[in-house]
Amino acid sequence: MTVLVFLDPSVPAGRIVDAAVPALMATDQGATRGDGVFESLLVVGGNIRKSQAHLDRLDSSARAMDLQVPAQDQWRRAMATAVKEFRRDRADASGSGNGSTTNDSTTNDSTTNDSTTNDDEMVLKLIVTRGVEGGTTPTAWVQASEPPAAGRAQRETGVDVLLLDRGYDSSVADRAPWLLLGAKTLSYAVNMAALRYARAHGADDVIFTSGDGRVLEGPTSSVLLAHAEGDGPDRIRRLITPRLDSGILPGTSQGALFTAAKAAGWELGYGPVEPADLFDADAVWLISSVRLLAPVNRIDGREIGTPDARRALTTELNKLIAGTQ
Amino acid sequence: MTVLVFLDPSVPAGRIVDAAVPALMATDQGATRGDGVFESLLVVGGNIRKSQAHLDRLDSSARAMDLQVPAQDQWRRAMATAVKEFRRDRADASGSGNGSTTNDSTTNDSTTNDSTTNDDEMVLKLIVTRGVEGGTTPTAWVQASEPPAAGRAQRETGVDVLLLDRGYDSSVADRAPWLLLGAKTLSYAVNMAALRYARAHGADDVIFTSGDGRVLEGPTSSVLLAHAEGDGPDRIRRLITPRLDSGILPGTSQGALFTAAKAAGWELGYGPVEPADLFDADAVWLISSVRLLAPVNRIDGREIGTPDARRALTTELNKLIAGTQ
Repeated sequence: MTVLVFLDPSVPAGRIVDAAVPALMATDQGATRGDGVFESLLVVGGNIRKSQAHLDRLDSSARAMDLQVPAQDQWRRAMATAVKEFRRDRADASGSGNGSTTNDSTTNDSTTNDSTTNDDEMVLKLIVTRGVEGGTTPTAWVQASEPPAAGRAQRETGVDVLLLDRGYDSSVADRAPWLLLGAKTLSYAVNMAALRYARAHGADDVIFTSGDGRVLEGPTSSVLLAHAEGDGPDRIRRLITPRLDSGILPGTSQGALFTAAKAAGWELGYGPVEPADLFDADAVWLISSVRLLAPVNRIDGREIGTPDARRALTTELNKLIAGTQ
Repeated sequence: MTVLVFLDPSVPAGRIVDAAVPALMATDQGATRGDGVFESLLVVGGNIRKSQAHLDRLDSSARAMDLQVPAQDQWRRAMATAVKEFRRDRADASGSGNGSTTNDSTTNDSTTNDSTTNDDEMVLKLIVTRGVEGGTTPTAWVQASEPPAAGRAQRETGVDVLLLDRGYDSSVADRAPWLLLGAKTLSYAVNMAALRYARAHGADDVIFTSGDGRVLEGPTSSVLLAHAEGDGPDRIRRLITPRLDSGILPGTSQGALFTAAKAAGWELGYGPVEPADLFDADAVWLISSVRLLAPVNRIDGREIGTPDARRALTTELNKLIAGTQ
């Protein structure tokens, strides 16, 4: 089930189009050159998680590409339409009919999300391209769809990961803005190829390293590692992620979790992170907006921490995530 | 004017679709992830240049991506349909009507191309994506369109170029196949960003360099440099291009020109090429299938060779190109 809502200045709430028929021009530069940007968001119980952070990052990616994108208000209205329509379709499909009521919380970040059950999750993708060749108008749409089953399972089972060279030096991003290293562009062929390589070699996912040996990020996630020492009131818990200036995407989920973890008394650290730090950690995760927290069981075949430590720390962080927007 | 022909097993000659209406699903992974490969070919006087080299490179790019693509015969038939349809449309638009006759040479590489006039040029793009998310069938089509006017002009006027860091070490391609460095993927956002950067900084085009200081390629072209020494029968002419194993795309035009140049008595060399070699050359070009040979007037503001040397060598190489298929 997929719902598509195209952004259209003449239709304030967005233009719902039939997802079963072609909706894009074959000359759209999104399709011919991967020339555009995107965001993926999780919706839980009708509540769009971290929509402000995603819209801000979309704007930031677009600036890196000299791409004009619709205003955030326009996105918000189209997202609300997509959520409403998708819930209606899902309710119709299940015969319950209760998804067809208007849910105002879809446009409101500040409502409390007290539900993290998987049953009412959906994924929103915001996509904007440079539009058709020779034109001046970007093409922008919201896609609502079911979350991938594999991702949900990996929240519980964890993932095996390969370390793969991303080819870049960790210092290149600042001096070479044309490499778009901090932008979430539609040019994801390398990210997809890395995931295929991992699957062909017995793993589930990837952690990219830089040419100078730093841990960067996953193809569709940020990397976190944790240390826990001591017990009771003297317990020290430390959460670490690679430095943002190493040419990685700023993770909206990593950012939200860090804020929640700090409030809960965790120490926070920003790399540099090297592969040895991952192997020394009590737990390592890949964190992203849709799959959320995927514990890393093994990296290049070596177990990370212990099953008990991974499980306990994952449970703790999942509680923090459930409390974030 | 654009003609679109989709490859469709049930329509051997390809399915002509209206280029003015949407033809792609919004969930096509070409559009959502730049997940596909492409080729751009020049058609002169109804004759498709270097079609075998392009089809072979498309297959090679697809293999690097684990992507199933249509057989070459199917592409050839769709290309022939696109050429015929485009010439008919152009003839109709100009009122002459002579483009509507069938031109069998469009599927035959071995016919002699004795025309390099610009008036009967067109561009073919072959595009194949991983298809819609969740599906198993690639999406493949041929697009016929007018050559960009800017490119034609640059064959005569030449281009000013900036050297920009591509971020990769020249040795990474072999050890990191997931970087897809020898594949012509749809993920061209960085290539487009580099061109925008050049234009925003007073130049027309880019030559990428590697992290270890080697000359690589342009965002949409291969790099050539030439030296000429002596006169008459003792004259030595040397044509040099960067090593293919440095993570660059094998240029079909560079390959065809090298074959023709060797037959005409040129010495050939394959890098490593460093920026200093470009500044020392008698002439430097960006060569590609549609724009053909664009002489480089200045790199980072420094003139390359002399206007007379550039003009004479460009004329000589253009004659060789006119004789290639």
